[in-house]
Amino acid sequence: MSEIVNITTDLFRIPLPVTLTDATHGEMREFDLITVQIRDSEGAEGIGYTYVGQSSAAPIYEIIESYKDLLMGEVAGRIEYLWQKMWWALHYSGRGGPVSFAISVIDIALWDLKSRKQNQPLWQFLGGHDPKVKAYAGGIDLYFTIDELLDQTQRNLNNGFHAIKMKVGRKHLSEDVERVAVMREFLGTDFPLMVDANMGWRTDEAIRAARALSKYEIYWLEEPTIPDDFSGYGRIHKEGRVPIAAGENLHTLYEFQHLIEADGVAFLEPDVTNCGGITAWTKVAHVGEANNLPVTSHGVHDLQVHLLAAVSNKSYLEVHGFGLQDYITNPVKVVEGYATAPDRIGHGVNFDWGALGKYRVQRTY
Amino acid sequence: MSEIVNITTDLFRIPLPVTLTDATHGEMREFDLITVQIRDSEGAEGIGYTYVGQSSAAPIYEIIESYKDLLMGEVAGRIEYLWQKMWWALHYSGRGGPVSFAISVIDIALWDLKSRKQNQPLWQFLGGHDPKVKAYAGGIDLYFTIDELLDQTQRNLNNGFHAIKMKVGRKHLSEDVERVAVMREFLGTDFPLMVDANMGWRTDEAIRAARALSKYEIYWLEEPTIPDDFSGYGRIHKEGRVPIAAGENLHTLYEFQHLIEADGVAFLEPDVTNCGGITAWTKVAHVGEANNLPVTSHGVHDLQVHLLAAVSNKSYLEVHGFGLQDYITNPVKVVEGYATAPDRIGHGVNFDWGALGKYRVQRTY
Repeated sequence: MSEIVNITTDLFRIPLPVTLTDATHGEMREFDLITVQIRDSEGAEGIGYTYVGQSSAAPIYEIIESYKDLLMGEVAGRIEYLWQKMWWALHYSGRGGPVSFAISVIDIALWDLKSRKQNQPLWQFLGGHDPKVKAYAGGIDLYFTIDELLDQTQRNLNNGFHAIKMKVGRKHLSEDVERVAVMREFLGTDFPLMVDANMGWRTDEAIRAARALSKYEIYWLEEPTIPDDFSGYGRIHKEGRVPIAAGENLHTLYEFQHLIEADGVAFLEPDVTNCGGITAWTKVAHVGEANNLPVTSHGVHDLQVHLLAAVSNKSYLEVHGFGLQDYITNPVKVVEGYATAPDRIGHGVNFDWGALGKYRVQRTY
Repeated sequence: MSEIVNITTDLFRIPLPVTLTDATHGEMREFDLITVQIRDSEGAEGIGYTYVGQSSAAPIYEIIESYKDLLMGEVAGRIEYLWQKMWWALHYSGRGGPVSFAISVIDIALWDLKSRKQNQPLWQFLGGHDPKVKAYAGGIDLYFTIDELLDQTQRNLNNGFHAIKMKVGRKHLSEDVERVAVMREFLGTDFPLMVDANMGWRTDEAIRAARALSKYEIYWLEEPTIPDDFSGYGRIHKEGRVPIAAGENLHTLYEFQHLIEADGVAFLEPDVTNCGGITAWTKVAHVGEANNLPVTSHGVHDLQVHLLAAVSNKSYLEVHGFGLQDYITNPVKVVEGYATAPDRIGHGVNFDWGALGKYRVQRTY
């Protein structure tokens, strides 16, 4: 019955090794990392984190600060209780947006703490289904030339990947078709090739694109249109005749439920750092299981490998770290197509605080 | 083509004259007011504001601050362009929550500025359908005794109200039924009496309550359950056999669309300070019109009277100001059941900055 006695929040603004570009977000040159460390009265600790682009970290940081009063002195292990307390404390201005990011960071730290107290790796503590998780390389490569795209692909193959995702959503559909055709030719018939449109299309455009791309046997088409249009996803899924993946922009359990109800998705893609943390991620996975749908991931693969390893309805782990792997002392490695959930206790993501230090953003109140 | 040259944000923490209580939000003793003043290169000004409880103002304030760079130097009158710019700048951590509040405040200021530049009252600038708007008194009275409830009601009648809303959602349905029965007896057969459950029920409880209350001819039942459960609203609306009102917790146009698609609502209730401002409020009203649904309001009646006066599908204006009327030099008055949109230019809400000053919360960065 140990209680929460300390909560520390830090914010870092980290330059990206290369500028990233996709169909919606423009050019990304840096990202913000928010970390939370929670300590209980027995000295146990847990770490949570999230990452955002475009300097939208300040409101998330503020929300975490405002949650400290709610959390201090509470029993650290009562995560469902604390989750609901956070959800309802900011319900009127919450239910998604930066509030979901803030809840995520704290929830991750609480699960880390709880599994560490049990001396168990997080993936085992959460269910321990299978530590080996198929992984794919997530490229952010919409404006790469075809040569650059193939160079990146060759590097990914050399690095042990047996599945790859590329961006689509260029100005003309014919460009997307050409690029996917070249990639399919390069990779061979059975190699899993996902494509990601980052919401770049209207529903009709998405259906047309899905049909054009379907002959290249794409493994899934990700985020063909805006995440709010559940019935549009239903149409694209049915009429486009390709499996649809979505979830990185769904920030509540209910949004996933709506998308599933609309039959708009084949691969659920919750991001543990923005959907409400491990608590919400697990519920999404379970709703997926009940609907015979696999769950995949978005971002932070060092964390998400634990979650996919825990559940029975897992699909691929996305490996794309925004360069965060340079600040983690023991990043997940991909070997012959698989990532393996580590046997360190908790999530075992150890930040290199020294290397992060120079990117710290000071906030004073 | 005048450009935005100055944006000022202020935050005030204002004590409530009486502690308020409803089925969800617990006791409220104060509220936070966030104001934004925008000035263009010709010296024209506009004011926007929102209000939140439970000290959740900090993230909204931060988001407004982060939007300043996007707005400065832009043409003030291109509101749709600026709205989309704000929406997409924080799309990944936005689409609702505090981001919708922040967009609302800025959008209101931009519409105020734009209508003032045209020397028109806002309601005329927006369409000018009919300045006389039926108004109801919104009570926050769940834990009032029946005597207190009737005293409040008598005061509301004395103050010119011809329609009243009361809270429901007490521990036992029989208590709600008794209170509504007493009110119906007191007010007479044809007097519009709304009830508001503030999300206090599950779907099955809401259906049971709706059926029990329907014999008292309630004008509408507001927020019977959580705003995320669109299909639940559909069931309550159909099986409960009373008109349903909802919207104060819907923060995007899409959420309203989903609720309408589910046939879950009879009265749309967007709050201009949290749904995305006048731009989004107007779109919600238009989607309502297309679906033969009236639009009503939540909070900030001094602003919302303009919006209801502008459109053709208006229902009642809620009059409940969280005590904000004490800090407005010319608050809207209700006369013989009606509020009238004022003929001052813009929205014409003039804050008493002197009186507000002592409640200012200093934020330094």
